[in-house]
Amino acid sequence: MRNILVIGAGRSASSLIKYLLDKSQVERLHITVADVSLALAKSKVTDHNNATAMALDIFKAEERKKAIQKADIVISMLPARFHIEVARDCITFKKHMVTASYVSEEMRALDSDAKERGLIFMNEIGVDPGIDHMSAMQVIDRIRDNGGKMILFESFTGGLVAPESDTNLWNYKFTWNPRNVVVAGQGSAAKFIQEGKYKYIPYHRLFRRTEFLNIEGYGRFEAYANRDSLDYRSAYGLDDVLTLYRGTIRRVGFSRAWHMFVLLGMTDDSYTLEDSENMSYRDFINSFLPYSPSDSVELKLRHYLKIDQDDIMWGKLEELDLFNAQKKVELKNATPAQILQKILEDSWTLDENDKDMIVMYHKFGFEMDGIKKQIDANMVVIGDDQTYTAMAKTVGLPTAIATLKILNGEITTPGVQIPISKEIYEPILKELKEFGIAFNEVEVPYLGYNPDNVGG
Amino acid sequence: MRNILVIGAGRSASSLIKYLLDKSQVERLHITVADVSLALAKSKVTDHNNATAMALDIFKAEERKKAIQKADIVISMLPARFHIEVARDCITFKKHMVTASYVSEEMRALDSDAKERGLIFMNEIGVDPGIDHMSAMQVIDRIRDNGGKMILFESFTGGLVAPESDTNLWNYKFTWNPRNVVVAGQGSAAKFIQEGKYKYIPYHRLFRRTEFLNIEGYGRFEAYANRDSLDYRSAYGLDDVLTLYRGTIRRVGFSRAWHMFVLLGMTDDSYTLEDSENMSYRDFINSFLPYSPSDSVELKLRHYLKIDQDDIMWGKLEELDLFNAQKKVELKNATPAQILQKILEDSWTLDENDKDMIVMYHKFGFEMDGIKKQIDANMVVIGDDQTYTAMAKTVGLPTAIATLKILNGEITTPGVQIPISKEIYEPILKELKEFGIAFNEVEVPYLGYNPDNVGG
Repeated sequence: MRNILVIGAGRSASSLIKYLLDKSQVERLHITVADVSLALAKSKVTDHNNATAMALDIFKAEERKKAIQKADIVISMLPARFHIEVARDCITFKKHMVTASYVSEEMRALDSDAKERGLIFMNEIGVDPGIDHMSAMQVIDRIRDNGGKMILFESFTGGLVAPESDTNLWNYKFTWNPRNVVVAGQGSAAKFIQEGKYKYIPYHRLFRRTEFLNIEGYGRFEAYANRDSLDYRSAYGLDDVLTLYRGTIRRVGFSRAWHMFVLLGMTDDSYTLEDSENMSYRDFINSFLPYSPSDSVELKLRHYLKIDQDDIMWGKLEELDLFNAQKKVELKNATPAQILQKILEDSWTLDENDKDMIVMYHKFGFEMDGIKKQIDANMVVIGDDQTYTAMAKTVGLPTAIATLKILNGEITTPGVQIPISKEIYEPILKELKEFGIAFNEVEVPYLGYNPDNVGG
Repeated sequence: MRNILVIGAGRSASSLIKYLLDKSQVERLHITVADVSLALAKSKVTDHNNATAMALDIFKAEERKKAIQKADIVISMLPARFHIEVARDCITFKKHMVTASYVSEEMRALDSDAKERGLIFMNEIGVDPGIDHMSAMQVIDRIRDNGGKMILFESFTGGLVAPESDTNLWNYKFTWNPRNVVVAGQGSAAKFIQEGKYKYIPYHRLFRRTEFLNIEGYGRFEAYANRDSLDYRSAYGLDDVLTLYRGTIRRVGFSRAWHMFVLLGMTDDSYTLEDSENMSYRDFINSFLPYSPSDSVELKLRHYLKIDQDDIMWGKLEELDLFNAQKKVELKNATPAQILQKILEDSWTLDENDKDMIVMYHKFGFEMDGIKKQIDANMVVIGDDQTYTAMAKTVGLPTAIATLKILNGEITTPGVQIPISKEIYEPILKELKEFGIAFNEVEVPYLGYNPDNVGG
């Protein structure tokens, strides 16, 4: 038996653990699922013969080290900031390690230690980051192998509600951490490059400069720019590319409506409101509007946002019950973002039978034999239910598959890494297809942003 | 002879030093002007018999201590962050101290040490903070002494260009640190209270929510809200006041135009632009606009800001030569704010004969004998020239007057303090009148924000 230690049994671990359990007989695996909550770990393990649930507080070093020592490979599904202690133990006890999180500076610093010991530290092998890397590099490498030169790469991902569960005016429900949605895009300006020109969008304009995307069978989506679209420029070998843009997908109309919250200042997480606990939802809105002795909050808001009462934007606000003077915030010393999150959670929490959806869309522009061409590739994954969500599947399955392939010696290159080499992405993408995680690829006429090569 | 040590001989020290020199014979003063630049110190001292210029690097502890030991009172005109070392020496050697800067936490911590030793550490005795405190408290105390109850206090200050030197479409030139102007208002939302309602304005809306002010003989001004209008609420004894608002004064139309820079993201100081050094002014603007192969930067900007070519907003942008493709930024790794500052300095730097102007405006709302009343008070000070600027006079003269009054035992209360008590503001405001620094006070009908007591 080979021992796999999974640390963290939260929502995103469901599909991961199921995959490993399903393979455990054939592959001779014993899976230990460790979580600070023993009950949670048990719920994921069920009564499977090849699995053990254990309580583990990763801040207790002795406990943690003991568990890691017994394993052949360790998967950390902890929040990203907690990986590093596990990683250092994996160096000490010479264990491979797998995470679905971004490579932190501290993690990167372990690269030479890992290489010296022949250890594979695979990171960013979830969905975004993860499937985005693999599916992009598969097409980019193929284009290059065929003698093409990349000139444009755009990549978009979104966690949304499935069409059958899409029941509100925002076409959106929280399928992941709501806080990340509320504060998305804050900080420095979004940065990308289009036709060789660097472009910057300040936060307060981010949701007004969207791009549209169509996916056959699923209709129209929109995307707003990520903070830094140039993050993987060098890793992907795209230093010379003219256009590089990464974005977040929403249903059409979401961003325009979200912009209202940004304009009002309701997404700000940098200060707290006076007496937030006793504010009503109505007071909350009113605190961002000019004082008036006579005008209603409703009219002030319409004027401020320059919208009419029959504008769909208005309908979206009403749907959230934002003007309710009875509903209280009930959060002490809360920031505007925390209060907005609470209000949205009233409306945007998934119902028991709701399903989620992950959408990914890539555009590859390239030149071959003097001709500009474009390939578009997209993936749509719908959740099975609220355990095996699209998010759990797309995060957990590539993580699980990579783990097994490392264990079986099919992935062999040591070091701290992300899945951008053929050795990794080919077998994983192939196996993901069996689970319905697959891309539709189409050749489309190259458009880019400057088809006629004019202007500036 | 009593020895006064002035540390820092920069722009704001001119009027201060002149005042002390002019009084030195009658008051038996010897003034030592110390600066890291001996030449600068000498230029302020001229050849006056009762003054000495010296070179002083305040980071050299021995030098600094020696100079402080010899003094009877120390005035620090250093940048605010450097006061604390001087203040600690003043505690050690039992010297009074005067600054025109905000009280830092570290300075406040010296309060009991100062009191024990009977030392007066007077701070915030420039113009803003300084004259604002004194002039406000004089009226507030008078209202209270007459049995009135304060219900509204609004206070506005601005450093502007004098009407005779007001020669551009923005009605603005840099009369103080340009950087502070470019990044003004950034960070958390502006916070104030109106008719008992807390209000918050996010940065990207700050310059769209202005108030107008009229000053007889000087015309119309506007003001945008300061970061935290509640800063002095308790110090002024205004905890129960319904409206408390502090703002920065500009000429009408400035804020609306400045908002264009905010919208574009040009005032952001949190990240650097790629290859900023080689950007032209035109490239700089273009980096905040959507890419287009054919549309001009001009048209894209007009569309983005929704302005016509004959809009005065457009004229303001053109006046700055923003669209010049030849003028280079020439700043390495510069933030948008740094580049904008450079562009503005091309246009907004004072000419040799230009004069500056300080404008202050207070509104006091109160209830007396069941009747709501209002007093408005305003002050306009014009600079004499580029040495004795309005800024130098309004910062330096109250500092100098306070220093002499401490030395002469007319101000006696020890401790770390700001000038909000009668003992301090009465004699200083009285003497400032001799220098043309005076307030015009008028009773006006009380308006407030809710004259009819309706709504919410």
